[in-house]
Amino acid sequence: MKVELVVVGKTTQKWLKEGFEEYFGRLKHYLPCSVREIQPAGAVPKNVAIEKEGKLILDKVAAKDWVVLLDDHGKEFTSEQLAELLNKRMSAGVTNMVLISGGAFGVSESVKSRADLVLSASRFTFTHQMIRLVMAEQLYRAMTILKNESYHHE
Amino acid sequence: MKVELVVVGKTTQKWLKEGFEEYFGRLKHYLPCSVREIQPAGAVPKNVAIEKEGKLILDKVAAKDWVVLLDDHGKEFTSEQLAELLNKRMSAGVTNMVLISGGAFGVSESVKSRADLVLSASRFTFTHQMIRLVMAEQLYRAMTILKNESYHHE
Repeated sequence: MKVELVVVGKTTQKWLKEGFEEYFGRLKHYLPCSVREIQPAGAVPKNVAIEKEGKLILDKVAAKDWVVLLDDHGKEFTSEQLAELLNKRMSAGVTNMVLISGGAFGVSESVKSRADLVLSASRFTFTHQMIRLVMAEQLYRAMTILKNESYHHE
Repeated sequence: MKVELVVVGKTTQKWLKEGFEEYFGRLKHYLPCSVREIQPAGAVPKNVAIEKEGKLILDKVAAKDWVVLLDDHGKEFTSEQLAELLNKRMSAGVTNMVLISGGAFGVSESVKSRADLVLSASRFTFTHQMIRLVMAEQLYRAMTILKNESYHHE
């Protein structure tokens, strides 16, 4: 399974970029993965931005993709449950996972409807840059759980 | 209210240190806060380490402190709820909050019993270093919510 992370906007904080690269780099040892950055809509009304970014996000999604949307109102999983879920999807023959992380104001209804799963990393609201770091670490952690490696302690 | 973060072990990842300093520095504009690092017990059996670290943690806690323990099996809050909780505690006259983040294997039962609240940042397991960054950002976010500042978007 290939993992594509679709994110709105660049990671501007240098330390976050480094942290993300650290875990995303580790993840690459287990799965092919890539990041696609969507240009934020900029100085337009919030609802216009969300629609515009939503169209660009959906352009990156193919019909057969397994689409997971990150949203703090989504469903929560433990790290073990996330690992199990990835395992099931891989066993079911999913070849492409698209993990979407929206901009500062979230994503459009059409992106929400397309998502096969709305996943929440936390009840807390994280910055839309920090969530990338969190998910890179969780995906890496999930792979170490599936491989029975010593990174994860329950 | 003063916030004391009691953590086991140093933050060794350079980018995490930078990220933590960024948000902890911002938090200092709102509240006096400090970090107390506990020396990890090192190469001893897991249960011995937990007990030893637990004693050192409790040495930092005074009877009147409001003690919040971070644990992924704890109670979850939204960012708004965390802000409201801090506000209530401050209004109730709490002058010292101790936020405890244990080592790689968690904390002892005696630390758990002393905690006034067991708080979970996520159902996911985070590294014991990354949770510091997450909490620094959330405490800062909580203060901006209480001050009606524009940092937080619901």
